[in-house]
Amino acid sequence: MRIVTKDEILTHVDRPAVLAAIEDGFRRFAGGAVQVAPVVHLAFPDATGECHVKSAHIAGDDVFTVKLATGFYGNPDRGLPSSNGFMAVISATTGQPLAILQDDGALTDLRTALASVIATRLGMRPGASVLGVVGAGIQARLQAELISEILGFRHVVLWGRSADKAAALVGTLAATLPGTEVTQAPSPAALCAAADVIVTATASREAIIRSHWVTPGAHITAVGADAPGKQELETALFARARHVIVDSAAQCVEHGETANAVRDGTVAPADLLPLGDALAAAPLPRGNTDITIADLTGVAVQDAAIANAVWSRLAA
Amino acid sequence: MRIVTKDEILTHVDRPAVLAAIEDGFRRFAGGAVQVAPVVHLAFPDATGECHVKSAHIAGDDVFTVKLATGFYGNPDRGLPSSNGFMAVISATTGQPLAILQDDGALTDLRTALASVIATRLGMRPGASVLGVVGAGIQARLQAELISEILGFRHVVLWGRSADKAAALVGTLAATLPGTEVTQAPSPAALCAAADVIVTATASREAIIRSHWVTPGAHITAVGADAPGKQELETALFARARHVIVDSAAQCVEHGETANAVRDGTVAPADLLPLGDALAAAPLPRGNTDITIADLTGVAVQDAAIANAVWSRLAA
Repeated sequence: MRIVTKDEILTHVDRPAVLAAIEDGFRRFAGGAVQVAPVVHLAFPDATGECHVKSAHIAGDDVFTVKLATGFYGNPDRGLPSSNGFMAVISATTGQPLAILQDDGALTDLRTALASVIATRLGMRPGASVLGVVGAGIQARLQAELISEILGFRHVVLWGRSADKAAALVGTLAATLPGTEVTQAPSPAALCAAADVIVTATASREAIIRSHWVTPGAHITAVGADAPGKQELETALFARARHVIVDSAAQCVEHGETANAVRDGTVAPADLLPLGDALAAAPLPRGNTDITIADLTGVAVQDAAIANAVWSRLAA
Repeated sequence: MRIVTKDEILTHVDRPAVLAAIEDGFRRFAGGAVQVAPVVHLAFPDATGECHVKSAHIAGDDVFTVKLATGFYGNPDRGLPSSNGFMAVISATTGQPLAILQDDGALTDLRTALASVIATRLGMRPGASVLGVVGAGIQARLQAELISEILGFRHVVLWGRSADKAAALVGTLAATLPGTEVTQAPSPAALCAAADVIVTATASREAIIRSHWVTPGAHITAVGADAPGKQELETALFARARHVIVDSAAQCVEHGETANAVRDGTVAPADLLPLGDALAAAPLPRGNTDITIADLTGVAVQDAAIANAVWSRLAA
């Protein structure tokens, strides 16, 4: 069994290949060709900590993936990162563990942002030019960078619940995204007024984006709600949406943004469009004034896809 | 993160300490002080393979355990062992993975056999002197060795579904258990007639032990049924049992020997005695002609207990 450190992993990330692998993974997931086990959740309330285990096998792949991810939110106070974990790559023909990809959460961060690229590309209207990012953490940074670079946005407007952290991230992005104008919005309302595409990447437990702020033609990708009780979007927004794309209908109805909207009747489970099905149907029919939403909770197939893509280069 | 190989792990197994840790783990599990996540199960039918992930945290322990175990039953035909896997030891205060104990299943084998020692000691009648072991695999070997050594049996009688494998194991045990008489029984009926304690450790999917073969006063520990569809004991035996000890009532009712007996009404869930409660109540009231059963499906608390015991010596 090979142990691969984060630095070595990152030199073996071929971003276009990973993006294609995740897209393919979603197609196959929607087609029933991916075995995804229920997510394991352990809670450590005394340490403000949690642990998730996500496991998946994409039919026909010669490896499968079991991912362990921890979040201990008091760590930064001790000078430690809050995220830790690894992906185990295991032979699907012999059961032998082949590698521990000790990514400390980096592959999870990347696959989360790349799923957003995929969903945003599907949902946004042609000609969308201003990207609004809500959040000031690592995921907000990756969303801003990858969506700008891959989908060609030249204007990014950012708002965070902490104005200081948002200002710092604006400074960082100005350096990592030369050629892109990056500005800080004074309010989420101002962000919505300016943005053609809105990506929310916070751990908020109450709606940040009000429906009446969102302008006709906008696309919203929400990636923050990954557990019960989290919310970034006012549910009224769902009533305005022509398409609600979901990475996993089962998970989104259980604990995504969609869960809140289903609960208050703003959207019906039957109206959800699985991301893999949306990919198969692309381009989606949408008028220039239609609103579209993508709700992403993070699915183990993404972990299997990115781990397989990295491992196939490492093992080559 | 430290990677610990099987050889290094085995030099850090202090058997009495592990036995005490598992016993304590069962007590705390019955007392509700252990967080055990539902077992993850992935199936690989094309490769006759399966993968289980078991996770547990014993309240107050500074680490928790996520165990990955695979069984790919075509491996021996290619000269590979069928069992593989590892136990991840993770800090319960920071979420950082501390160690991968790459035991290839050895710690699982050991904790399974030690739980049987604990349950057998509880259930057997004073003066029991002949141990009957049903099975011819690695678990049958460990059961014979550990129960004989720790509980002081000097007579072992063994029967396996493959007479050749059973004969080979009898030869092995004769060497590893000097001072103990080891013989091969011509039939499971003959084994039952001779044995005071019967341990079943097969992957059978139909009853091997008939109730009317079992003599008054016998104790039976069944460890083979760890998944739906498996069975070693005729359910009528449960109607004769004074105590039915279960490692986990939830698991045993779902997929242990007990599941079969509950299904046909031979035992009621309310009559099951959790192993941890039995330990707290020891010695159990039992007459010399009473029959007792222990049904062990394998609980993540055993993994947490053995991993913690090994890790505390490795990290010392």
